[in-house]
Amino acid sequence: MSNSSSLKKVLVTGGLGYIGSHVVVSLLLTGKYLPIVIDNCHNAYPEAIKRCAEIARDEMGADAPQPIFHQVDLRDSSAVDEVFAKYAGEGGIWAVVHLAALKAVGESGEIPLQYYKVNVGGSIALLEAMEKYNCSNFVFSSSATVYGTPKTVPIPESSPLQAESAYGRTKQMVEVILQDVCRASADKGDKAVHAVSVRYFNPAGAHPSGKLGEEPMGKPGNLLPLLAQIAVGRQKSDLKVFGDDYPTPDGTCVRDYLHVMDLAKGHVLALDAIASKSIFASCTSAEGMYRAFNLGKGKGMSVLNMIAAMKKASGFEYKYEIVGRRLGDVPDLTADPTLAEKELGFVAEKNLDEMCRDLWNFQTKNGDGYSKQ
Amino acid sequence: MSNSSSLKKVLVTGGLGYIGSHVVVSLLLTGKYLPIVIDNCHNAYPEAIKRCAEIARDEMGADAPQPIFHQVDLRDSSAVDEVFAKYAGEGGIWAVVHLAALKAVGESGEIPLQYYKVNVGGSIALLEAMEKYNCSNFVFSSSATVYGTPKTVPIPESSPLQAESAYGRTKQMVEVILQDVCRASADKGDKAVHAVSVRYFNPAGAHPSGKLGEEPMGKPGNLLPLLAQIAVGRQKSDLKVFGDDYPTPDGTCVRDYLHVMDLAKGHVLALDAIASKSIFASCTSAEGMYRAFNLGKGKGMSVLNMIAAMKKASGFEYKYEIVGRRLGDVPDLTADPTLAEKELGFVAEKNLDEMCRDLWNFQTKNGDGYSKQ
Repeated sequence: MSNSSSLKKVLVTGGLGYIGSHVVVSLLLTGKYLPIVIDNCHNAYPEAIKRCAEIARDEMGADAPQPIFHQVDLRDSSAVDEVFAKYAGEGGIWAVVHLAALKAVGESGEIPLQYYKVNVGGSIALLEAMEKYNCSNFVFSSSATVYGTPKTVPIPESSPLQAESAYGRTKQMVEVILQDVCRASADKGDKAVHAVSVRYFNPAGAHPSGKLGEEPMGKPGNLLPLLAQIAVGRQKSDLKVFGDDYPTPDGTCVRDYLHVMDLAKGHVLALDAIASKSIFASCTSAEGMYRAFNLGKGKGMSVLNMIAAMKKASGFEYKYEIVGRRLGDVPDLTADPTLAEKELGFVAEKNLDEMCRDLWNFQTKNGDGYSKQ
Repeated sequence: MSNSSSLKKVLVTGGLGYIGSHVVVSLLLTGKYLPIVIDNCHNAYPEAIKRCAEIARDEMGADAPQPIFHQVDLRDSSAVDEVFAKYAGEGGIWAVVHLAALKAVGESGEIPLQYYKVNVGGSIALLEAMEKYNCSNFVFSSSATVYGTPKTVPIPESSPLQAESAYGRTKQMVEVILQDVCRASADKGDKAVHAVSVRYFNPAGAHPSGKLGEEPMGKPGNLLPLLAQIAVGRQKSDLKVFGDDYPTPDGTCVRDYLHVMDLAKGHVLALDAIASKSIFASCTSAEGMYRAFNLGKGKGMSVLNMIAAMKKASGFEYKYEIVGRRLGDVPDLTADPTLAEKELGFVAEKNLDEMCRDLWNFQTKNGDGYSKQ
C-alpha cells in the first residue's frame, strides 16, 4: 500500500454511480486524492467500487491507493455525521464532491417532492455536516438543465438559470444555496467555503478498460445506453426519434456529448483549482468564493449523428421511427466551454468515436451489467 | 363547548407567532375552522394560544371553539407525522396554513444554511406528511421579498421572482416546490394538491383587544415595533432613518403596511377559496392547482409617515437621525392588491391610524410583552 495518509481525503457522494465511479477512478489515478465513497445503492452497485480499485491496481501497481466505501443515505443525517466523525481524527475530509441525486427528468415531474427532499434536502444535510467538521471545499454536480431553453447557443455560464423541470430546479436551488453559504463565510479567509458547480452537458462512453460504465436500472432513459442495449439485444429495438423538425442541421435535437472520463477529469481539475484557490481570485466577498463552470465539448451532435456513430461502433443496423416532439425537449444544448478551458485547464478531448467505442466495449464485456456479478 | 367535530381542522404551523396568532384568532372567529397549532417556541410563547382562546370566548361566548397546541419542530419529521396521525381518525386535518419559518432578512445572510434547512427543508417535511395523510389543501406564508427590486410599482403578482436575500430565496424556493407538487397531482381531481401562496407586504398593528400583538425577542428588527418600544421606554431611542435620498415623495423608503388582522383575514379567505375551489378554475393541469396573491393595502407609506403616525398614536416625540442607505433596501415596495380583491374578496380595510392605535394599545397593556406572563 502507498502511504494513504499523505493523500487528501475526498468524500464522493453517489460515488458508485455512472459519473461517480469514473470520478473515483480519476481521483485514485492522480495519486493525490483518496476517495471516500458514500452511496445508498438506490441506483448503483457496490461492484463499481471493486472495479475502481482494480483499474487503479492495473494502472498504478499493487500499491495503488484503494477507495473506501460506506453505504450511507444522505437523508440520514446522523449517518452522514458519523462518516465525517470517523475521519476527523485523521486530518479530516478535505473536500466533498457531491454527486448523489435523483436524476430522471421525467420522473421528477411525477414525484417532485422526493426530488426536492433528496437533492435539495440531501445537499443541505451535507453542507451542515461539512460546517460542523470544518470541511470547506465543495464540488457540486450540476447540470446544463439549469439553463432551461437558453437564449444563446453555445451556452455561456452567464446565461440565466431558468430550469424547466423539477430535476433542473433542484440543481438550480442547490447552486443558489451554495452561493449563499459561500457568501456568508467569505470573510473567513482559508476557512471560507470554496465551492465549484460543474454543469454537465451529456456524458457518454465508459472507462476504456471496459470495467466501468453506465449501468442504468430498467430501460435506459438516455440515448446512448439505450442504443448500446438495443445492439446487444438487451432491449427490444423500439427506437423512437422525437421530432425531426427542429431548427437544427438534420432536424433532430442537438446535444453536447462528452466522454465520461473527460467529465471525471473536470472534477479533478475543479479540486486542483480549489486547492490552489486560483479560480477565486476574481471573487468579491459580496459574491463569496463560488464559481460555476460548464463541462462540455462545445460541439453539438444530433440524435441521428449519435445513431450513426453507434452503428459504426457496434455494427448494428438500427431501425428507428420518427415520432412527434417530446414535451420539454430543447432543440440545441451545446456548451460554450471556454471558461472551463481558461480557468480550469479543462478540455474534453475524446471524440464521439471514442465515446461509442468505449461504451460498446463496456456493453459487450458486461452484457447484463455488473448488477449480476 | 360547540361541536368542534363539525369544524374543519386547520393545522397552523408557527401559530404562536405574530402573524400566526392573529390567523388562529381569525380562524376561531369564523366558527368554521378549528386551528391546530404547532410551533417550536423558538421565537414565540405558548401564552399566545391562551390569549387566542380568551379573545374567542370574549367574542363568541363560553362555547367558543378552542385552539389546540402541540409543541413540535418541523425539522422533527416523526413529530410532524404524529400530529397528522393523531387526527387521522377524526376526519383528518383538512388544510395546512404554513407560517413557521425563520424570518430575519439580515440574519439569513449570516446563517443561510439554517434558513434553508428550516424554511425549505421544513416545508418539504410538511408536504410529505400531508401526502402521507391525504391532506391536500395548503396556504403558504410567502413574502413580498420574493419580488426583489421590482420593475413595476405597484407590484403585480406576475412580477418576476428574484429575491435578493437568502430569506427571500427560501420563500421563493418553497413557492417553486409547491407549484411542482401541485402540478404533479393536477390530474387527481379533488385529491389534487390545491395551494395558495400569500405574499405579505408589511404587517403592522395588533388585535384591537390589546391581548395579542408582536412580541419580538431582543431588539425589534421592524420599524413599528421598534417605535412602540421606544415610546414605552423599553428601547433606547437611537432611531436611525436609513437614507432620505430615495426617489420617493419624502426621500425615505416606502412600504405597504397593512393591519395584521386584515392580513389574517387574507388567510381565512384563501382557505374559503380553496374550499370552494373558485380560484382554481383558470388553472390548467400543466400549471397545477396553484395560485399566488399579494396581501397588501396598495398604499405606500414612508418611514417618516410611520414615525409621524406613531407619534400621533403614542404622543411620543421621536428623535431620529438620518444616516446612509442600508444595503439591500428597495425604495418602494407597494402591492398591486387588485388580484386578491377580485378573486379572494380581500381588502385591507384598516388604515394607518388604526394600525398604530392597536399597536400602541398592545404595547401599553403588555409593557414587557407576554413573555413575562
